[in-house]
Amino acid sequence: MNQDYIKADSWSIIEEGFDRERVKSSESLFSIGNGAMGQRANFEEQYSGETFQGSYIAGVYYPDKTRVGWWKNGYPEYFAKVLNAPNWIGINVVINNEPLDLNTCKKVENFQRELNMKEGWYKRSFVATMPSGLEVAVDVVRFLSLDLDETGAIQYNLQVLDGDAEVIMEPYVDGGIKNMDSNWDDKFWNITKIVSESNRAFVESHTMKTNFAVCTFMQAEVFVDGEKIEAPPEVNKTETLVGHTYSVKAAKNETITLIKFGGYVVDRNHPKDRLSETANKILDKASDLGFEALFQKQKEDWGHIWEMSDITIEGDVKAQQGIRFNIFQLNQTYLGKDSRLNIGPKGFTGEKYGGSTYWDTEAYCLPFYMATKNQKVAWNLLQYRYNHLPKAIENAEKLGFTNGAALYPMVTMNGEECHNEWEITFEEIHRNGAIAFAIYNYYRFTGDYSYIPKMGLEVLIGIARFWHQRVNFSQDKQQYVMLGVTGPNEYENNVNNNWYTNYLAKWCIEYAIEQIGKVAEEYADDYERIMTKTKLTEAEIKDWAKVADNMYFPYSEKHQVFLQQDGFLDKDMIKVQDLDSSQRPINQKWSWDRILRSPYIKQADVLQGFYFFEDHFSKEDLERHFDFYEPFTVHESSLSPCVHSIQAAKLGRMEQAYTFYLRTSRLDLDDYNKEVEEGLHITSMAGTWMSIVEGFGGMRVLDDTLSFEPQIPEQWSSFSFKVNFREQIVTLTASKEGTFFELTGNEALTIKVHGKSVELLPGKKIVA
Amino acid sequence: MNQDYIKADSWSIIEEGFDRERVKSSESLFSIGNGAMGQRANFEEQYSGETFQGSYIAGVYYPDKTRVGWWKNGYPEYFAKVLNAPNWIGINVVINNEPLDLNTCKKVENFQRELNMKEGWYKRSFVATMPSGLEVAVDVVRFLSLDLDETGAIQYNLQVLDGDAEVIMEPYVDGGIKNMDSNWDDKFWNITKIVSESNRAFVESHTMKTNFAVCTFMQAEVFVDGEKIEAPPEVNKTETLVGHTYSVKAAKNETITLIKFGGYVVDRNHPKDRLSETANKILDKASDLGFEALFQKQKEDWGHIWEMSDITIEGDVKAQQGIRFNIFQLNQTYLGKDSRLNIGPKGFTGEKYGGSTYWDTEAYCLPFYMATKNQKVAWNLLQYRYNHLPKAIENAEKLGFTNGAALYPMVTMNGEECHNEWEITFEEIHRNGAIAFAIYNYYRFTGDYSYIPKMGLEVLIGIARFWHQRVNFSQDKQQYVMLGVTGPNEYENNVNNNWYTNYLAKWCIEYAIEQIGKVAEEYADDYERIMTKTKLTEAEIKDWAKVADNMYFPYSEKHQVFLQQDGFLDKDMIKVQDLDSSQRPINQKWSWDRILRSPYIKQADVLQGFYFFEDHFSKEDLERHFDFYEPFTVHESSLSPCVHSIQAAKLGRMEQAYTFYLRTSRLDLDDYNKEVEEGLHITSMAGTWMSIVEGFGGMRVLDDTLSFEPQIPEQWSSFSFKVNFREQIVTLTASKEGTFFELTGNEALTIKVHGKSVELLPGKKIVA
Repeated sequence: MNQDYIKADSWSIIEEGFDRERVKSSESLFSIGNGAMGQRANFEEQYSGETFQGSYIAGVYYPDKTRVGWWKNGYPEYFAKVLNAPNWIGINVVINNEPLDLNTCKKVENFQRELNMKEGWYKRSFVATMPSGLEVAVDVVRFLSLDLDETGAIQYNLQVLDGDAEVIMEPYVDGGIKNMDSNWDDKFWNITKIVSESNRAFVESHTMKTNFAVCTFMQAEVFVDGEKIEAPPEVNKTETLVGHTYSVKAAKNETITLIKFGGYVVDRNHPKDRLSETANKILDKASDLGFEALFQKQKEDWGHIWEMSDITIEGDVKAQQGIRFNIFQLNQTYLGKDSRLNIGPKGFTGEKYGGSTYWDTEAYCLPFYMATKNQKVAWNLLQYRYNHLPKAIENAEKLGFTNGAALYPMVTMNGEECHNEWEITFEEIHRNGAIAFAIYNYYRFTGDYSYIPKMGLEVLIGIARFWHQRVNFSQDKQQYVMLGVTGPNEYENNVNNNWYTNYLAKWCIEYAIEQIGKVAEEYADDYERIMTKTKLTEAEIKDWAKVADNMYFPYSEKHQVFLQQDGFLDKDMIKVQDLDSSQRPINQKWSWDRILRSPYIKQADVLQGFYFFEDHFSKEDLERHFDFYEPFTVHESSLSPCVHSIQAAKLGRMEQAYTFYLRTSRLDLDDYNKEVEEGLHITSMAGTWMSIVEGFGGMRVLDDTLSFEPQIPEQWSSFSFKVNFREQIVTLTASKEGTFFELTGNEALTIKVHGKSVELLPGKKIVA
Repeated sequence: MNQDYIKADSWSIIEEGFDRERVKSSESLFSIGNGAMGQRANFEEQYSGETFQGSYIAGVYYPDKTRVGWWKNGYPEYFAKVLNAPNWIGINVVINNEPLDLNTCKKVENFQRELNMKEGWYKRSFVATMPSGLEVAVDVVRFLSLDLDETGAIQYNLQVLDGDAEVIMEPYVDGGIKNMDSNWDDKFWNITKIVSESNRAFVESHTMKTNFAVCTFMQAEVFVDGEKIEAPPEVNKTETLVGHTYSVKAAKNETITLIKFGGYVVDRNHPKDRLSETANKILDKASDLGFEALFQKQKEDWGHIWEMSDITIEGDVKAQQGIRFNIFQLNQTYLGKDSRLNIGPKGFTGEKYGGSTYWDTEAYCLPFYMATKNQKVAWNLLQYRYNHLPKAIENAEKLGFTNGAALYPMVTMNGEECHNEWEITFEEIHRNGAIAFAIYNYYRFTGDYSYIPKMGLEVLIGIARFWHQRVNFSQDKQQYVMLGVTGPNEYENNVNNNWYTNYLAKWCIEYAIEQIGKVAEEYADDYERIMTKTKLTEAEIKDWAKVADNMYFPYSEKHQVFLQQDGFLDKDMIKVQDLDSSQRPINQKWSWDRILRSPYIKQADVLQGFYFFEDHFSKEDLERHFDFYEPFTVHESSLSPCVHSIQAAKLGRMEQAYTFYLRTSRLDLDDYNKEVEEGLHITSMAGTWMSIVEGFGGMRVLDDTLSFEPQIPEQWSSFSFKVNFREQIVTLTASKEGTFFELTGNEALTIKVHGKSVELLPGKKIVA
């Protein structure tokens, strides 16, 4: 953890001072993205020090051949990896025959990075003393356009401060890219064409196996004190790279400016045979607009995003910065325009974890996108899973299931499983339930039922079939049991009767049966189509119901709590607070078997069930379970504190709720786990948002009514957020003086505040 | 499975006909070894078809860097692998400028391999039609000398059958060897010197990291129709190889004979700086003796081995061949001369499985070596583990244990863990118990207590300490429980309260306490030394006893059986016989999670406990447990059928016992699992021996008395084996006419036969 690394600032992420040790961490923290692509904050000019180069295109992946120590039946032969794409940001700078390389400079002064979250741009500036002693000042602004989301822009300004010099600038596109985490040192890209046309250049390449064709392009212009250099650049082409060399005699303090546009055109969005043509058109558009106009548009577009999704916190700059960083990164990663995309755990900031989609999307991210975007975005997230249903059925078949049972993968890019650790891949099957819950949650929040007859019911049927086959009847217990699973608490593997999973399975079956009934009654055509397609019979549904009606749940009479799994009480029940601090985090200090047999909980498990199904239990139930499980919870998953924060807030334990909130909101900014250099924890950022909105704001939808239980942490003077509820915007501002509500929309909306009905009228602000 | 692959023969393994598809399988089956080294039956001349080249030196290993999909704390960074050593058997043959290569020959006729187990040699002969049409006849005899165990000999005879020809023979030593299973394509060997001296050649190399220095050597002589060619060979040296080229003008039907001696000198046994000197001396010895005398000695030496260890079976040639193959391979792998060596699961026949020592050694191999060798051999096996005690303590420390607790590795070469699969490495801890049991078993069988005060007690203390720390007190059960283990049935992972492991833990503690008492009383000096070294206190021993006295054992009142683990009865209890045959073997047909939640048992688990501790339970207990568990047992481990065979025999179910026996005895010869090309299943071969001696022979040591319950399978007319019991040899011959006993020794021995005392007198044969 490193609290002073990033300067406290309400709208910007700022690093001051050049530290070689922090280059990789800052490359993660200052990453930029626009939903369609993203890149780590690598330097434009060459850097010979430790760096982790990364540029990523949404939805472009590579099926790497699986490498494991010990193969298990059922593992995928190949799995999709986030793919490092060709680099278009590169600009080699050579001054008086010396390359500019911050790693070899004698001195680097006034080094500053700024990620301006309000306006969506990244700036870096410094004054460097070259090995020869020459001083140069550089400032660079870079952004990935929201408006033209296939392109980005760079303005690279350089001044030689202490004399005249010969400056060479070589903007280039480099197609010779490798993944850090290639399993077999395979080549992932094949370059097919390298073209240079006046001040533009194009590298066409396609991924091996998946055959995504990509044209990586650039255009550059160089100015000296604002005056454009018209002489055509020298072209430098190798087998993997194309560069344009501009030589400039620069007088002392003259500013040399290089404006570069670059980006990717992908055959997912354009005809394969017209990629460079399309790239040319995009460059035409960008250069017609020019850097300044595109930059202006960027600021406006981010303004629109913030208008809807900003959370303000008064009286705590670091908390303010933290929540904005989280909201900013979520928006950089996924904007919901394309139902083929999803929210990777590292977004566009690193390669770790293989695929792009976890149950995080449904359990943590969906609420954020539902409340801060229009409902089409949430629909797209649901449709993503519908599109993958055939693969989920195939996946279940690989594991021995039949008759259309669907098991969604633990991790995926294209619907296929991307994970190979049996205790997770084959056993952490509760993920299936989160996907069904998201369907329920979408309808609950948006009131839009149409997804279910159109797509959702088929998903629900596939999932119900899975659970029905996954349990077995225990002669001993005379109930249905579920053996060999891993719950959300991954510090238990291959346990029997994980309460959360059993509960979710029962609920999924019941919810599916309920929706089948509703669709049969209200959407006869869809019902007909779905029954024909799934060959579902009344008899099968009855069999499901038998399972749901007679599911076993481990329970302790003594403690009056559901048990996380069979045998939980056999553990050595030492609370986390009584554990020597030298033993923590246990995932770094203990061997795996010791973690497994301990009572320690990585992230909410039973409590995750109480979070999803809050309305099934009383507040006293919640309190008893919270008091039983939280003391054994080590919160060693970035997804843990948010659920606990929400529950602590609900139980009126604001101090505790606030502590949990702090743990998530600045996880990456303060680099709690010393791993930010691998990339950011994108999906857990949605959990931070939930902590405020559902925790402190107490937002729920109860009986079709938007409802709040606002409380304010002592440390803050006020906080405020907006929620898009069924096409109307509700703004809540909680302060020491009271809670204010405001409605932007067309019609009155009745909400509940602390259980009492309150009518909001468009444009009117009220205290409640 | 391939029943007609190998010809039935009581003393030899014979393959007839050349089949490219079987080359790798036969390379395994015809492997030769002499305890100090061994090699797959690779061809001497070049072979361009599919082959698995392998030559191995006992105790020479390489610590390969671990490669896993998902790292777990506690995994070893490196682990020792069986190392493929330089090749000294190679002889390139070129006839009229065409290389002799069976893969490119037009025809290969009269191809035969014979592994003569009685005399310990391997022969191959064939008539090949070269691409040019020329016919050549070849026969080659090869053996690894038991007498000079650093050398082997080859006699390569070649005749050109249809004309004169120019024959070039190039015997060589090749140091440029790689392992098939290198994790990171590392180079394992470094060559330091390549020398040629008249008709001898030497390659000195050492292993990377472990730095074992090895001189691989050869000497060759060529004869034409018995007349030695005196002209010195041409020398061919590369960076990795040295060869001697002999050119011979061979007339039709003249026999060209190449006699090659070769082998390894290792710095484990000789001074590092005198390796080639030593190699020269060995070659002097071998060539002074000459091929024929060395060959004669080989036959005699194997005769001595058989004298003691042979089992004869009348009336069933295949059964006879099977048991002899097993006994032969065990002797090829380990002769018990060196306490630094052990019995690898693949012996010298392949690389699979990394390290060399599993709990197989203690649980399965020790009884064989105790009964067929002198007791020093068994002592050496025990001493091996004593030597590794400090590493076992280190290993336990890595997993968080303290105070001298010892956890022996799952797989090892030098005492360090060689395995990295958490559910096995960290959890299959019952292996510790097998090591303690072996100490008990050694004393029970040999009557030699001296190992315990000298070495064994320290081992027992380390193991007791481990169990004491590994359990925890369950408040819920008010007993000690053991969570998160894998029993011998590896089709269950991370279970709670595996009965076998709990029972073994309790026994280990009690046995350790008992031995501490005995050593205190009878070996005061040793006691003093050990107490000082281990810092063991009375208080600690009392703590151990508490655990042993109050251990929890899962039990079913309904079935009156101990349960394999908590929750076993929740499974879907469909018996193996009711499983569709298309589903088997389940380890090939089912995904891992499905196997885990099934009731199916890979190898004896509860019944392994009943095997070890037979005298703790009644025959009725055994019968009840056998009838409960065997129907769920799929026997998908090579170690499974033997224990069941012994127990079936004890229960008088000879038909079943015989069926189990058949499953082990010809596992490799008939290639049941289609994997013999990877190497042989050496350790399970000892289980086959046990099936006859302990199963059909009913041999036990009860109250210090050798005891038998002989029964004969219907399919046999008789069988016979010998047992070295405390320096006297008892021969049992069971036939339809009765059971005969004979004693070779100096004094009368009272044994029990079917519970009745029988006195055996030296040299006298009696019926009992």
